[in-house]
Amino acid sequence: MTGSDTPGAVVLLTGFAPFDGETINPSFEIARRLDGATIAEHRVIAAKLPCEFGAAIVALREALDAHRPRLVLALGQADGRCDLSIERIAINMDDARIPDNAGRQPVDEAIVAGAPAAYFSTLPIKAMVAGLRAKGIPSSVSQSAGTYVCNHVFFGLMHELAQGRQALRGGFMHVPLLPEQAARRPEQPCLPLEIMVEGVRTALEVALRVRVDLRETGGRTA
Amino acid sequence: MTGSDTPGAVVLLTGFAPFDGETINPSFEIARRLDGATIAEHRVIAAKLPCEFGAAIVALREALDAHRPRLVLALGQADGRCDLSIERIAINMDDARIPDNAGRQPVDEAIVAGAPAAYFSTLPIKAMVAGLRAKGIPSSVSQSAGTYVCNHVFFGLMHELAQGRQALRGGFMHVPLLPEQAARRPEQPCLPLEIMVEGVRTALEVALRVRVDLRETGGRTA
Amino acid sequence: MTGSDTPGAVVLLTGFAPFDGETINPSFEIARRLDGATIAEHRVIAAKLPCEFGAAIVALREALDAHRPRLVLALGQADGRCDLSIERIAINMDDARIPDNAGRQPVDEAIVAGAPAAYFSTLPIKAMVAGLRAKGIPSSVSQSAGTYVCNHVFFGLMHELAQGRQALRGGFMHVPLLPEQAARRPEQPCLPLEIMVEGVRTALEVALRVRVDLRETGGRTA
Amino acid sequence: MTGSDTPGAVVLLTGFAPFDGETINPSFEIARRLDGATIAEHRVIAAKLPCEFGAAIVALREALDAHRPRLVLALGQADGRCDLSIERIAINMDDARIPDNAGRQPVDEAIVAGAPAAYFSTLPIKAMVAGLRAKGIPSSVSQSAGTYVCNHVFFGLMHELAQGRQALRGGFMHVPLLPEQAARRPEQPCLPLEIMVEGVRTALEVALRVRVDLRETGGRTA
Repeated sequence: MTGSDTPGAVVLLTGFAPFDGETINPSFEIARRLDGATIAEHRVIAAKLPCEFGAAIVALREALDAHRPRLVLALGQADGRCDLSIERIAINMDDARIPDNAGRQPVDEAIVAGAPAAYFSTLPIKAMVAGLRAKGIPSSVSQSAGTYVCNHVFFGLMHELAQGRQALRGGFMHVPLLPEQAARRPEQPCLPLEIMVEGVRTALEVALRVRVDLRETGGRTA
Repeated sequence: MTGSDTPGAVVLLTGFAPFDGETINPSFEIARRLDGATIAEHRVIAAKLPCEFGAAIVALREALDAHRPRLVLALGQADGRCDLSIERIAINMDDARIPDNAGRQPVDEAIVAGAPAAYFSTLPIKAMVAGLRAKGIPSSVSQSAGTYVCNHVFFGLMHELAQGRQALRGGFMHVPLLPEQAARRPEQPCLPLEIMVEGVRTALEVALRVRVDLRETGGRTA
Repeated sequence: MTGSDTPGAVVLLTGFAPFDGETINPSFEIARRLDGATIAEHRVIAAKLPCEFGAAIVALREALDAHRPRLVLALGQADGRCDLSIERIAINMDDARIPDNAGRQPVDEAIVAGAPAAYFSTLPIKAMVAGLRAKGIPSSVSQSAGTYVCNHVFFGLMHELAQGRQALRGGFMHVPLLPEQAARRPEQPCLPLEIMVEGVRTALEVALRVRVDLRETGGRTA
Repeated sequence: MTGSDTPGAVVLLTGFAPFDGETINPSFEIARRLDGATIAEHRVIAAKLPCEFGAAIVALREALDAHRPRLVLALGQADGRCDLSIERIAINMDDARIPDNAGRQPVDEAIVAGAPAAYFSTLPIKAMVAGLRAKGIPSSVSQSAGTYVCNHVFFGLMHELAQGRQALRGGFMHVPLLPEQAARRPEQPCLPLEIMVEGVRTALEVALRVRVDLRETGGRTA
């Protein structure tokens, strides 16, 4: 009932509503499957965020207030990616290639005016990648979460944390399409839900247990 | 008990031994899982082929003689592919980028001297792709099986069929890496064994039931 | 003045009309630039083929009759390719992903009923790749010319040769987009016209001088 | 003789020494070709930076002190990219996948301890992309400059600017391989030097003339 990371402590796991013509979004399907699970003595609470600039951060903030988690992992769908990719950095910029679910399409707008240009994830991203790979689940570090609603929520999360929820750690993971989505979109990689659920469970377990990240390269030359 | 496609009839499903430094080959893992299964009233018999030019066709021919199947589907592993890809054509050419498991590396050699330049698959490749997609399993037609041991076996199979086993139909499917392989090789797509087993089962079922292929594009401009 | 490969001998170099919404096709731009050039004592004659199934082969046959070349190189545009890719094999199959310029979209139709399943290029494809690379021009062997009008013409050409123009050698090269095309289509590789012209000149020179191809791998595992 | 952006004003254009086994680096070849040119009434001064963490920023700072430019564009080579890609953001993180030319391989180290997590380019990146495309030169906005020496220099530059050279504007452009490099590395896109020189000239001209960037999407969903 007292300290951090004790029974009673909560992990918030968010996913998004479907977007871009899809009727399903693997990010929320994963979160829903893990809702109520216990991982490293934390209870997982899932939340569904709208795929809308602005409203997604409002919903995230409400979930933070309601559940007072110790750790937050936000999930989002990424076409064209093969693996569970752990994002390194959130940037203070919206630049939407397509409209969001409310029809808004911000271009080159700061997410939070006056806030820093970027925040690094405060999760042990290298250890999470290593933990996933050790279980035979493909994973890598990603250097960009894009400039759409995923990055928007990731930045909103990290800004919240920086503003005074500093005991709270947070980060973002992009996940591939589901097979049923890829079956309609040739040449898109995918992973089935079961392996992604197992992967997110593993990533959360590592994130909860590891405080000092591995020193192992996950960079790119460009 | 005798006629085609009756109980008692056999489907031969081949996979390869691991190659190129791998310790597992998804193609044979799939075949092994389906060994003994009944699909569309046919019994599946799995065979493992060596990843060796020449010897692979010898082993295939022995399996054809031993089991007298009604239909043959040969499977092979393809790095970099996202889906279950059904090959359209086998070409009469070995051109090995890397040595095979016996250390041989033929370059620009005919597989069967004097044989045709190529054979088309005699399986209903478009219907197989459509059947897989309908089950939410990513699949596409491929226009090239490469020039390594996979194409070698595919050509050897089709040449056997053309030589006098003409009641027998045959074809080839390339499959992606397994997640445990992709976990060691970043940026490679993969599919888990379960979905590939389900996919091959579906493809065989379609191949056994469909005699006239769908007229649905699966081509490429280049 | 009469024999093969003497002054007076002709090389036919074909390119296509623009297609798929484009207003330019690099394949014909290259051919046009080399029209009238002398390469290895042969005069280059360029011909423009319509991007239409059927009509393209008719136009090719007319050019063969009119110019009685010693060697034919057909060129075609390939989105998504980075280099000058020399095709290994033409297959007897049309399967159009998009309609041609006349609105026709054949699916799984033989190009020439009763003809072989495929023909190999009779040009020294490995020596051509090596010659291009030696000049610093990116090039590779391609295992599939697709199933659209490019493969259609390539097959039509090789079938003509097999039918009684056997002194004549022929092959096909796919070329990337031009920069001005890629500037409108992000993430598409390209090469400028000048380097492609130089590359085709080099390829023709090698093709005219080399009769026995190099034994150097240009294959793919899948 | 008087204010900024008059004759006498200088643009600093940097490129890197070759790295990763190469003997040439297109980034410095471009800079060298434009050294001494006049663009939008500014004189271009080229500088070569070592491909070394730390030393590259020292060399950049010396060039800034020596030439007191009005605008700085740093160039770097990027394998696998097709176009002139204008970087949006520099991040305060070194994570080297391979050692630099001095054998150093920092992993997850801040470039400048205590500095912000990131800086945005202060060049009009959308207008630069639009200007290049209008000239038929492929270009796009990039959301990540990687975590190697390129990003290192870009961050070092933007930090210098933020520290008190605020009249100075700066940014980074990644460029593809040269054809002669791609000829040795199959499946890598490239652009010839001439088009890249023309592209950088155009980009500098736009950067010097445009103060308020276009509002045009250049983002990615992930």
